[in-house]
Parts: sequence; structure tokens; C-alpha cells
Amino acid sequence: MQISPEQQTEIDEARAAETSTRRVVAPELEEILYQPIPALDHGFVRVIDYMGDDSAIVQAARVSYGRGTKKVSEDRGLIRYLMRHRHTTPFEMCEIKYHIKLPIFVARQWIRHRTANVNEYSARYSILDKEFYVPAPEHLGVQSQVNRQGRGDVLEGEEADKVLGILKADAERCYDHYQEMLNEDDQGQPLDPERSGLTRELARMNLTLNVYTQWYWKIDLHNLMHFLSLRVDDHAQYEIRAYGVAMLESLKRWVPLTYEAFDDYRVGGAFLSRQGLEAVKRMLDGQDVTKEDVGLSAREWRELLATIGQADG
Amino acid sequence: MQISPEQQTEIDEARAAETSTRRVVAPELEEILYQPIPALDHGFVRVIDYMGDDSAIVQAARVSYGRGTKKVSEDRGLIRYLMRHRHTTPFEMCEIKYHIKLPIFVARQWIRHRTANVNEYSARYSILDKEFYVPAPEHLGVQSQVNRQGRGDVLEGEEADKVLGILKADAERCYDHYQEMLNEDDQGQPLDPERSGLTRELARMNLTLNVYTQWYWKIDLHNLMHFLSLRVDDHAQYEIRAYGVAMLESLKRWVPLTYEAFDDYRVGGAFLSRQGLEAVKRMLDGQDVTKEDVGLSAREWRELLATIGQADG
Amino acid sequence: MQISPEQQTEIDEARAAETSTRRVVAPELEEILYQPIPALDHGFVRVIDYMGDDSAIVQAARVSYGRGTKKVSEDRGLIRYLMRHRHTTPFEMCEIKYHIKLPIFVARQWIRHRTANVNEYSARYSILDKEFYVPAPEHLGVQSQVNRQGRGDVLEGEEADKVLGILKADAERCYDHYQEMLNEDDQGQPLDPERSGLTRELARMNLTLNVYTQWYWKIDLHNLMHFLSLRVDDHAQYEIRAYGVAMLESLKRWVPLTYEAFDDYRVGGAFLSRQGLEAVKRMLDGQDVTKEDVGLSAREWRELLATIGQADG
Amino acid sequence: MQISPEQQTEIDEARAAETSTRRVVAPELEEILYQPIPALDHGFVRVIDYMGDDSAIVQAARVSYGRGTKKVSEDRGLIRYLMRHRHTTPFEMCEIKYHIKLPIFVARQWIRHRTANVNEYSARYSILDKEFYVPAPEHLGVQSQVNRQGRGDVLEGEEADKVLGILKADAERCYDHYQEMLNEDDQGQPLDPERSGLTRELARMNLTLNVYTQWYWKIDLHNLMHFLSLRVDDHAQYEIRAYGVAMLESLKRWVPLTYEAFDDYRVGGAFLSRQGLEAVKRMLDGQDVTKEDVGLSAREWRELLATIGQADG
Repeated sequence: MQISPEQQTEIDEARAAETSTRRVVAPELEEILYQPIPALDHGFVRVIDYMGDDSAIVQAARVSYGRGTKKVSEDRGLIRYLMRHRHTTPFEMCEIKYHIKLPIFVARQWIRHRTANVNEYSARYSILDKEFYVPAPEHLGVQSQVNRQGRGDVLEGEEADKVLGILKADAERCYDHYQEMLNEDDQGQPLDPERSGLTRELARMNLTLNVYTQWYWKIDLHNLMHFLSLRVDDHAQYEIRAYGVAMLESLKRWVPLTYEAFDDYRVGGAFLSRQGLEAVKRMLDGQDVTKEDVGLSAREWRELLATIGQADG
Repeated sequence: MQISPEQQTEIDEARAAETSTRRVVAPELEEILYQPIPALDHGFVRVIDYMGDDSAIVQAARVSYGRGTKKVSEDRGLIRYLMRHRHTTPFEMCEIKYHIKLPIFVARQWIRHRTANVNEYSARYSILDKEFYVPAPEHLGVQSQVNRQGRGDVLEGEEADKVLGILKADAERCYDHYQEMLNEDDQGQPLDPERSGLTRELARMNLTLNVYTQWYWKIDLHNLMHFLSLRVDDHAQYEIRAYGVAMLESLKRWVPLTYEAFDDYRVGGAFLSRQGLEAVKRMLDGQDVTKEDVGLSAREWRELLATIGQADG
Repeated sequence: MQISPEQQTEIDEARAAETSTRRVVAPELEEILYQPIPALDHGFVRVIDYMGDDSAIVQAARVSYGRGTKKVSEDRGLIRYLMRHRHTTPFEMCEIKYHIKLPIFVARQWIRHRTANVNEYSARYSILDKEFYVPAPEHLGVQSQVNRQGRGDVLEGEEADKVLGILKADAERCYDHYQEMLNEDDQGQPLDPERSGLTRELARMNLTLNVYTQWYWKIDLHNLMHFLSLRVDDHAQYEIRAYGVAMLESLKRWVPLTYEAFDDYRVGGAFLSRQGLEAVKRMLDGQDVTKEDVGLSAREWRELLATIGQADG
Repeated sequence: MQISPEQQTEIDEARAAETSTRRVVAPELEEILYQPIPALDHGFVRVIDYMGDDSAIVQAARVSYGRGTKKVSEDRGLIRYLMRHRHTTPFEMCEIKYHIKLPIFVARQWIRHRTANVNEYSARYSILDKEFYVPAPEHLGVQSQVNRQGRGDVLEGEEADKVLGILKADAERCYDHYQEMLNEDDQGQPLDPERSGLTRELARMNLTLNVYTQWYWKIDLHNLMHFLSLRVDDHAQYEIRAYGVAMLESLKRWVPLTYEAFDDYRVGGAFLSRQGLEAVKRMLDGQDVTKEDVGLSAREWRELLATIGQADG
């Protein structure tokens, strides 16, 4: 993570400014407000602003005149009830805004979630910094032959060195050519005063997909949880999961009761299909069940057994 | 507006609780936070929470590390530029949450705006209060014969009395029957302990459309301005415009620079069609122009002349 | 259901007009195109148009140049895989449009789903018909004392008669007064040529919530399934479930493979929480488990046992 | 545009398959269904499916039982009225689906419109083709010094050659390294059977932003027009405008009456601010007006004079 001294000063000043408000405040989240939480080699996530806390969910569910909360145990019970029964609208009443720095190929996955507001740093108007993601060696996964998505083993030795060398050299060369075409140095001065520069909106096309971009991203709590449930999942690509994990921490500080319910009813649970449920019922009744009995494919059967903790003997 | 003493106490307590925050604060809006602004005979609008202020728009547009604001004049210039060129995403970075009490027929118009989050008081679970909208006599518009939408003249004398009598008597009778079917009095006690009550989810169907409901409604600044531009317009029904006008006041307190730009570039301006623009150009060149010259219908021509302040002679 | 002879003629003409198209066609759905499927006493659902079929999901998932389908068994496998792993975007590539006639109180529940396009018949511009929903006696549920939402027993005898009498009389009286205030008869002629009429936008407020309205409603397949999974559920109010059930039939005709997967992976399955899953694992390992062991409330424990088919002994 | 013979066969087969339907059909659009319309050097736009036509807008606005159309002149009048008064919901009742091939940097601009459904070709699962955008020499704009966005002059001679050389060489080298890291040739065979390949989800990060991707993109007519009004505008980057222009053609074939209204009331017209309108009124009244009189900045004044066709003398 590269925060320039100038940027750090801006962050420190924003953190130092405290004001009085009548709004609900989430003290644990205030503690880390504006502070970058690192993700990947140069990326970060910063909470910039938020609206509401656990009590605001209760307040909205009750359409209250006052703060809406009663005893913590009652609030907790209501929040768990809402989560369990998928009453999503009260969770939409809280909102959070992040500043995120991330590689472009991660940004392209991220933006597929359309239920957020986004302001991205514009490479039409401005020049991107010379920062690009290079994986740590332990993340250089080998393409699996059975499963097109996952990473199994990891490249090692010479093979790893070669890949890392390519990634660095190509990103660097492309970036240097970007500057050359723009005819601008790091300070925005012409490299060659005799030459014209290509427009920024065109020059950017020479950059590689691991160059970092950044954006402001604002989302309501319900949709944030949906995003996180997909992005902290084992099936998510490591590079986006790194951001999901960093954001889970902010969720926990912001709305601890909701976080707990989210963990129990979304992250930690599992969905059983009609056939999977039928198999479980029969097993609990002491029957021997085969995948054919309930009509599951080999793959689904394997997944079911893994879910319910039964060895496939 | 009927706020019970109990509700007023809740509001007062919420207003009294001040806490320290690192977030940006809109002091003018804090002043009226939680306070009901009256609309129609029993309705209101209350600001419950907000995120951001004018500076947050600038901050998002610049994807800043710090607060993002420079001089007020620069901020003002940027906000006006964004508004003029319809760069909407920075305005989406601010959010506001209202508690609104409104007649059901107004709620039905309102909900057609889908870009907000809503939590409505549930008449499946709870019992609605005995409150219904009856127009003030000066709003009893007569159905126009030329324009199916507007209100021209106003009913008077006996005719007005008759309408008001009907509205009151029918709403009241329907509400009393609602309670009778529920077999519950105002305190939730059985009217007749020997009888069963009809489910709430069914009994509500006997209520009239002027009964008041209430909801929490949360929206970003861009979509709020879109909503207001439609709902404070002359073509909007008076009963929803009353809410729009009340909310304009909160907009002004929240984001004064944005409010000014909104007023100049949305509310106070006008769109000219290709043909309308052509007509204006010719007029400015000193030509005599007829509606046939530019291909406008009689109605569009009339509207154009009204827009550009030319009498239709 | 009241379809006037004039409306029936319009429907018949639309059904009779066959044209050639290069688009994919769903023959089973074409069979019922435009035909009203009854729901409640005067309501209906009609499919007006659709885009895509099962093959279009496969085509989008593969970003194909041609039709995209291979063998039916492969298409079925892919659709089930997409449904199981919540890859929702290919299902968004199909779209359907309905014409629906429904009571206003049902419309108010329905509209809470915001991911659809809606054109409602306007009571500002037009006059609503004299049609209102009155439940069949077997649906006159008694308000449950334990569960605020559900219907347990049913009103009978005199109590039922009384409720039905109220509902009919109030809806009728309110409608008649609506016409009187409008000063218009069923043919749009003045009841009294000497009087002015109240504007339609105001007069409508005197109507009861069981009056029928109608709208065109368009939604993509993914969001339709989400809507249906909530609305054919046991927890949904009977009056909206009646529409959900009618629409399931159109889903089956439109995209039979998707319907099957939807039934297996959404409707027929169940979500187990972290604690519920833990309990099942222990049971399968032959342990005695109590709700305290896994930290479930009495209510959640009861729900879990019901889900996995174990009597609560 | 590179369509392989295999792809062309698939397209031809899809075009050849004609079926009977009861739905409304847009004959002019059927003519070009599935056919790629070229955009940029290797990109295209193909219409894959559509729902509705001009008559469907009328039908939805009227909530009709039948086709909804009357005389063409009446339909035209209603469509123009709806467009003029921003009644957007009837236009949302038509839907269109495209298959689009476009450079990644264009895709990143495009996706900022969130009101569409998207299925992108997955570079996590699949390997991208070796195709990248290189601008034609006449589009090699020079970065403007006054306006950070636009392109003024064009690079020429050696400078242009140099830029084109860089763009080609870097894209090619990065792509070759992508294949090398994947250890796969164009036929998906290992380049070196002794080596492992890096996962696809990682290797893609070495590609440049001018590499082509493709997606299925589905949108309703209202949102399509909003997209097009922004993207065929002079301020839009040439590379995305090229797609906008190609799509305008499909709009015209699909809904000719709507296209005409769109052209008159969106594309060809102009919005005047409160101050701009004031200036026009005064000019028409024969007054001499300065920008100070109405409170416009120099830039806004210049824009206003250009809009109303008055030389800035």
C-alpha cells in the first residue's frame, strides 16, 4: 500500500476533525474511519462515511418515532428474525461508503454488482499512477485440469520466477509507453516540449489489467452482505476475496448484531436442494441412501456429503 | 398533524442525544433532524438520517483522500458543472432517510419511483390509526373538460359541502367497520370477547384510500432531485406536491450549493425540442415564424410561447 | 373474472394474428398467449409478450454466436448448474410481460418488488370499474393470537355473513359515492348536467382497498423466480399467492428446464443455518442433540425439526 | 470484424430458422436479426432478440386488452406526448438484447450504465482471442490543453507511426506472454507438455486494455435511449460513440415512431437553464443582454449562444 505523505496528511486531518451530531453513531467504526485497510500489494479499503447502525434496522422495521431500540436482547432477536426470514428492507436502511484502490481486473469483477453507487477515478481526465499488482509467489495457482475455475497447486521455482518476471516487465513497459505517448512525466510536465501528446482517453488503452484504479463505492447494508457472501466464498478469486475479508472487519465494527446474524444465517449455513433434503431425512430415519435413490448426480452427491460432514466411503 | 405526547417524547429524546463523530456534518439540517414538517391535514415529513453534504459530492468527484473541498467558490463551480453536464454519480454519493406519513393514494403515486428503499408500516401485522385525509375546501378541484389531468375551478357552496360530507362519512364508517371486523378497540382489546376477529391482512381491505399510512424512505441525492423535479412540478397532483415542497426545505438545509444548482438547471430551466429550438433561432434572427414553419402542433406551439415568455397574439 | 365481450374480441383478434419471426419461440407459452388466467373473484393474469426460452439462458451463459444449445441433456445440466451456484445473470436474459388485474391492497404488496417495470391504469385520468374483491367464505381467516401474520381458523355462520355483508356494502357505497362526486355515470355521461364533477384524482380517494386495479408488469426471469419463491410460499397472504400460483403455470410453459431446476433448488429445498447444520451433522453421527447444544431458540429448533422431518418428541 | 466461418454458419442457421408467433413483430428489425453490424476495427453489435414495438408502448400506456393501436397518426401523437412529458414507463415495456464485441476500455465505460443485464465472456474460465483495438490514424487525437476531455488536432507523420507501433507491439507482446504463462496454444494444447500453466484468472491480468471482450447486453427501450443520448453525444469518446451510432440504426428499425420522437425531444433539442431562458426571453423582447445581466459565466454564455445559433460578436 502506497499512501503518499501528502495523502496521509489529508487522512489525518479528516480523522482529527470531530463534530457533534444528533445522528446515530457507530463508535467502533468511527475508530477506523478514513484509515486505509491494506489489501493485496498496493490496494486498500477505507470507510469514508456510513449511515445508521444496528438500532437503525430495528427503527426502520418498526417505523418508529424515536430511536426504536428496546433491550439489546430484543433488538438482537428482531435482527436475527429479519435475517432468517429474508426480510431485507430494514437492512437497506443502513448505508456505507468506501474508498477502494484495486487492480483493474478486480474492478471488472466487482462492478458486476450493480446495486451500488460508484465514482471511479477517470483515466479520460487524469493520469493513472504507476502501480500494478504482482501476486505473491504463494498465490501463483496452476490451472486445474478438472475444474476450470479453481487454483490447485502453485507454480514453483523457475516457472514462478518466469511468470513474475513477465508480469513485472510487461506492466512496466506498457506504463512507460503510456507516459511516452502522453508525453508527460510524473509531474505532468512534457517529456519532450517539441512533441504533442496523445489524448489520455486513448493512451490508457496501452495499460495492463493489473494496473491499479480507485473508486468511491457506496452501498446499502443488505446489498453489501450479498456482495460479501459471494466474495468471501471459497469459489471467489483470491484477489477479490482479499477485499471481501478486509470489508468484513468494517461490517463487524459497524453493525455487530447484524454481523453475527449474517455469519449464522448466510456465511455459515448451507442450502439443501429438494433432493438433498430428502436424502438427509432418509439418513436420519436410519435408511441407507444412494445418490440414485434421490436422483442426485455424482457431483451433487459429493457436495452434499461434504456439506453434512459425512465421509464418502 | 397528530403527534401523540408519547411520540413527541421519543422525538425530543432523539433530538437531545448529541454525540461526537468524524463524519461530515450538515449543521443546518441537524437543526431540524427528527422534527416533523407538516404536510396535508395529518401528514408529515421528518429527516431521520443523512450521509454527506456538498463537500462529499466534490470529494467523490475527485476520488479524494481527504475532505476534498477547496475554496467554496471552486466547490460551487464544480457542483454547477456536474449538474449542468448531468454527471450524476457524484450526487449519488449522498443519502438521506425520511419518515413520512401520507394518505394511501399518495403513497401509491410515490412508490412508482423505484430507486429508493422503503419500509412501510405493515397493516398485515399492525392496526392502522383512524386518520384520513379530507381536502381543504380550496383544493376541491373541478374535473377539467379539456385536460383530463388538471384541476381548474373549485367546487363551492353546497356542492363542496356534499363532497366533504361524503369523504368524511365514508372514511369513518369504513374505519369503524374495520375495527368491528377485527373485533379490537383502540387499545387492542376485544370489542366482544365472545367473537373471533378477522385477520388484519384481510380487514384492511375495507379501508378507504385516504387513510394515512407511514414509511421510512431512503434515497440518494441524485434520485431525490429527480423525484422532487417531478413532484414539485405544476403537473403533479397537489397532494403529493405538498410533500415535495416540504422536502425542498430539507434539501436546501442539507446541500445549499447543490440546491442552488438544482434550482437553476432543473427546476427553473426548460427543455426545447429540435423544432422549438429552431423556432427560437429564427425569431432571434428577426424572422416571422409560424408553427407550421417548424412543424409544431398547436399545443406544442402554445407551450413553447409560454416557455419563452411570448404572448400568443 | 369479468371480461367484456368487447375485450374478449380484442383478445381473440390478438390471438388470431400469427406472424413469422426469426426469434426463439416458446410454443407451449404461445398456446396461452393473451388468454386471461383467473385469479380471485374478478382478477386475472395474462401473458402479453416474452423474450427468450431455456435455450436463451444457455446462449447467454456461453456468449454464443448461434442458438447456443447443444443436446437437451447438456442444456439441462448447465441450467441446473447455474441455478445451484446462483449464477443469476443468464436468467436475467429472458423477459416476460403480464397484464394483471388485482385488488389495490394486493397491488400494494406486489409493488414492493422494485425490479420490474410497471404501467398501472391511471385513476387520475380514467375512472375505475365497479369491481371489488370479496373473499370466499373459506378464506375468512381468524386473526391468530400466537402468530400475528397467519390465518388459523375461519369465521363461520353469522360472523362470516356479517363480515361479507360489511365488505360488500361498504365497497358498493363508496363506489357509488365516487360516481356521485365525479358526477358521471357508467357511460361517462353527467349524472346531473347542472353540477360540476370533482376531479378524478381526488374522487378516487373514496374507494376501498379491495377495488380492482390493473397493470402491465414486465420482469426478467431471475427476478420473476425471486418474486414467485416469496409469493407462493406458505407465509404469503392467500390473495397474492393466488396470483403466484397462476403465474407458476406460465413459467412452466415458458422455460420447462428452468422451472424444474427452480422447483428443486428454490421452492423444494431449505436453508440450514450454521447451528442447524451443526445439529444435523451431530444427529447423523448418532449423537443426541438438544437445542441448547447448538444454541438454537425453541422456535428455531421447532422449525429445524419440521424441515428435516423429525418429530419433536 | 473477424467472424470465423464457423461463427458465420451459426449466424446463418439462426437467421434461417423462421417460426410462427402470436407476439408483435418488428419486420424491419427482423431483417437484420443476428447480423453483426461492424464497429471499430474488430468489434460489432448484433441484435439477438427484442420484445415489443411502437404499438407495445401505446398498448402499455393504455393498459389495453388488445393490441392497443388505433390509427398510426394517433399512435404517433401519443408516443410524442409521452416522450415530451417524460412519461417513461411505457417505453420500459419494450426490451432488446444485443451481442457486442468491444475493447475492454470501452466495456469499462459502458458498464457504468447499471440499468441493463449483462453476461460477459469469462476470462476466468475461458481464453480471450488475440484481437485488440488499434485506432485508425485519423482518430489519434492530441490531448487538448484547454479542455481535459476532448480531442482537438490529430497526431501526424512520425508521431502517429510511433504511437501505432507502440500500441501494436505492446498488445501483441502482452498477449503472447499471456499464452506463454497459460502454457496453451490457440488450439488449447500445451505449448510445453512438461510445464504447468498459470490459472486463467491470473494470466489475464497481463493483457492490455485494448483487447476485445464480448457480452450479451439486454436493456429496456427507455434506458437504451438514455444510454444512446449520452453515448452519441459529441462529448462521448469516439470509440464508444462508434457503438452508439451502430445501435441507433437498430433503434430506427425497431421503433420508428419512437426513434423520431427521441430525435426531436432528446437528441435534437437543448436544455436552457433558468439564466439561459431569462436571456432568451430578454433577447426576444429586443433587449441587449450581457452574461452579467443574467448571471452566466463566460463558458456558459458561450455555450448558450452556440445553442441558440447566435454568433458571439
